Amino acid sequence: MSTPDAADRELTVALLGGGTVGSQVARILRENADDLAARAGARLRLTGVAVRDAGRAREGVDPDLVTTDAAALAAGGADVVVELMGGIEPARSLILTAMRAGSSVVTANKALVAEDGATLHAAAEENGVDLYYEASVAGAIPLLRPLRESLAGDKVRRVLGIVNGTTNFILTKMDEEGADYAEVLAEAQALGYAEADPTADVEGHDAAAKAAILAGLAFHTRVRLSDVTFEGITRVSAQDVAAARDMGFVIKLLAVAELSPDESGLVVRVHPTMVPRTHPLAGVRGAFNAVFVEAEAAGQVMFYGRGAGGAPTASAVLGDIVAAARNRVSGTRGPGESTYADLEVLPIGAAVTRYYVNLHVADRPGVLAAVAQAFADHDVSIQNVRQDGKGEEAGLVVRTHTARDSALSATIEALRSMDAVRSVVGVMRVEGEEGR
Amino acid sequence: MSTPDAADRELTVALLGGGTVGSQVARILRENADDLAARAGARLRLTGVAVRDAGRAREGVDPDLVTTDAAALAAGGADVVVELMGGIEPARSLILTAMRAGSSVVTANKALVAEDGATLHAAAEENGVDLYYEASVAGAIPLLRPLRESLAGDKVRRVLGIVNGTTNFILTKMDEEGADYAEVLAEAQALGYAEADPTADVEGHDAAAKAAILAGLAFHTRVRLSDVTFEGITRVSAQDVAAARDMGFVIKLLAVAELSPDESGLVVRVHPTMVPRTHPLAGVRGAFNAVFVEAEAAGQVMFYGRGAGGAPTASAVLGDIVAAARNRVSGTRGPGESTYADLEVLPIGAAVTRYYVNLHVADRPGVLAAVAQAFADHDVSIQNVRQDGKGEEAGLVVRTHTARDSALSATIEALRSMDAVRSVVGVMRVEGEEGR
Repeated sequence: MSTPDAADRELTVALLGGGTVGSQVARILRENADDLAARAGARLRLTGVAVRDAGRAREGVDPDLVTTDAAALAAGGADVVVELMGGIEPARSLILTAMRAGSSVVTANKALVAEDGATLHAAAEENGVDLYYEASVAGAIPLLRPLRESLAGDKVRRVLGIVNGTTNFILTKMDEEGADYAEVLAEAQALGYAEADPTADVEGHDAAAKAAILAGLAFHTRVRLSDVTFEGITRVSAQDVAAARDMGFVIKLLAVAELSPDESGLVVRVHPTMVPRTHPLAGVRGAFNAVFVEAEAAGQVMFYGRGAGGAPTASAVLGDIVAAARNRVSGTRGPGESTYADLEVLPIGAAVTRYYVNLHVADRPGVLAAVAQAFADHDVSIQNVRQDGKGEEAGLVVRTHTARDSALSATIEALRSMDAVRSVVGVMRVEGEEGR
Repeated sequence: MSTPDAADRELTVALLGGGTVGSQVARILRENADDLAARAGARLRLTGVAVRDAGRAREGVDPDLVTTDAAALAAGGADVVVELMGGIEPARSLILTAMRAGSSVVTANKALVAEDGATLHAAAEENGVDLYYEASVAGAIPLLRPLRESLAGDKVRRVLGIVNGTTNFILTKMDEEGADYAEVLAEAQALGYAEADPTADVEGHDAAAKAAILAGLAFHTRVRLSDVTFEGITRVSAQDVAAARDMGFVIKLLAVAELSPDESGLVVRVHPTMVPRTHPLAGVRGAFNAVFVEAEAAGQVMFYGRGAGGAPTASAVLGDIVAAARNRVSGTRGPGESTYADLEVLPIGAAVTRYYVNLHVADRPGVLAAVAQAFADHDVSIQNVRQDGKGEEAGLVVRTHTARDSALSATIEALRSMDAVRSVVGVMRVEGEEGR
């Protein structure tokens, strides 16, 4: 009933990029052609796949469709152009070329959307075409549409996401096996869960790009990668993981986007975080991703699934292709960029959070009092202290109540300079406890 | 940019029903008016709230807007009519009246959508209006839009849902406290998690309606409540829960919709199910809901959140109101019903599943062989057996490999008639194990 002329109508699709995701998209376009036609209201015909090396055979891709001339394919006026090359250039120029030629664009390019989404959105608006990028965050997990549409009547307060599979794989292994970071990284590389150069993942850069995109959607504000404070997992030690476990917590690399307490602004940050084991995010293991949303009316909502991989990412890309095609068939456009709220993106110091602090201190009278005073001096209230004497040195683990992040980090500075504090062994933010 | 004239344009909203959800919808329409206007592209003005008893004060609802004449309000031509009365009639007639008057309709009425969604969809089509019903399944959890749109390029194979908060609350308590069903039901009633007459929840009727809606969306097929085989939790004993726990499982009331092995049809069923504790659904506790989707390309995806309650349900309703309003502003309609696949809905006997069977048998030689033979006679392969002698009687717990449900239930019949089998103490389906 909703697809009266699917068999008569045909729309064209061009792929820029024929790697793991691209070849899966090509395969599904062919294998699921009838289903896709019924859902899109038109048959979807692949007109070309632009690749760097035309010589390499690609499973699922008709060799006749392969071209190395990405610019010509982008300019060819396909109904939907799918950009799967990654990186800023030439991806951006090709997308703009495609839009000027009247093509709707689907992209999985988180780096580009996070860095210069504004340019892409403006070009889509100007040329009356669609821009979809569901696959850019958390692979197969439907996120952008739920955030942008399903929660459109609600007020999002926080988004907590595990959005990088590599680091979650590593942290899960460290938790399960008590192993050290370097050891597990090597294992992850051997298994293909981490790249030979893992920097973008383990330093938090990849998660920061996704945090920017999520924050923009959730808070109707333009958020750029440069607005996000981020820290990776390279300094997380087996000792931190064990301490977390002892306290009933697990360490996750979280992307956090939240309203400031007075609702005047946003803070967007990525860092290793202690999460209670009872929190739904604690159960997200291995290479899985999940995004946890706290909204005023909806309460807590979580989306879970595979964050990467050829087929999962292709699933998200295909969903967007169908949406763009459906809009063509009905002569409309999907919702454009929504940045009306235009909140200020504040520095991480404005965040309100809790800290876990692990200190080695001199084991003599007055030290605990001095340490407690350092917290009090910065208006940071202590939730919990655990002290273990070990001869002339004592271990001291402090968990704080919520305070401004700037006050918490100033406290750490003060502790570092104290005579009685031999070393600050570990500092980590804590999220997801009751009452936050 | 996307909302150039939000301040100039006004759309009207009429509420049929002023109960818990309705008053939350009215409150949010008022309190979040500016945000909603920016997102919908028009200001949303509440024009009336139809209630049964006009005398009762309703928090958040302007008394001047309250009317007892639902028919007049439905016929009044509001841009969006929101039906929150529940039940089949007069809800259906009022929705049809509203559509004929040119109103788009948002409803949270699972019973009506499951029983006669076809009539509503046809009327929406005929009158060129929208029909949205996100709130009808799993309250605040965005589900219908992700299933219908985000996964539109993929092929869903199974949907496993915890879609009834009352029964999940009861089963969670039974698991946590080892308590009996009757005891926990009384507690749930005292806390307001179960109604005075809990039949619709505990007998699986409510979950079955939601299963029908989910199955229809996931498989592009019209599924009616009468197509769903369902069984509630009233026969789940503390003993079953303990046995599940011993084996590393937890019992959940699952709504299952899946392709038959040859993909020619669908099976839709609701029943108590043993789920491994390592499965993401096992961690869904208390009154929370979750829906787990297995799709060919996406792999495993899960949606989690509050399934009921005034504010969570209102969040879903508002999302739909904004979508319907946005379509009005841009002069389009959202995607209509998609039933092109038109799969046959098969009886539960066609399902492929695993069983857990708990037997009391005579403790004498040859009994295990006879029991094993009964399974073999029906081509059911045994995965695992545990026998505990207790004097002249033995406890025998059998877990099977996958087999057709009809073969499994025939096996149970055969066991019941065997001399050596004193009683069949527990039988339960098992889902979510590796390899299924």
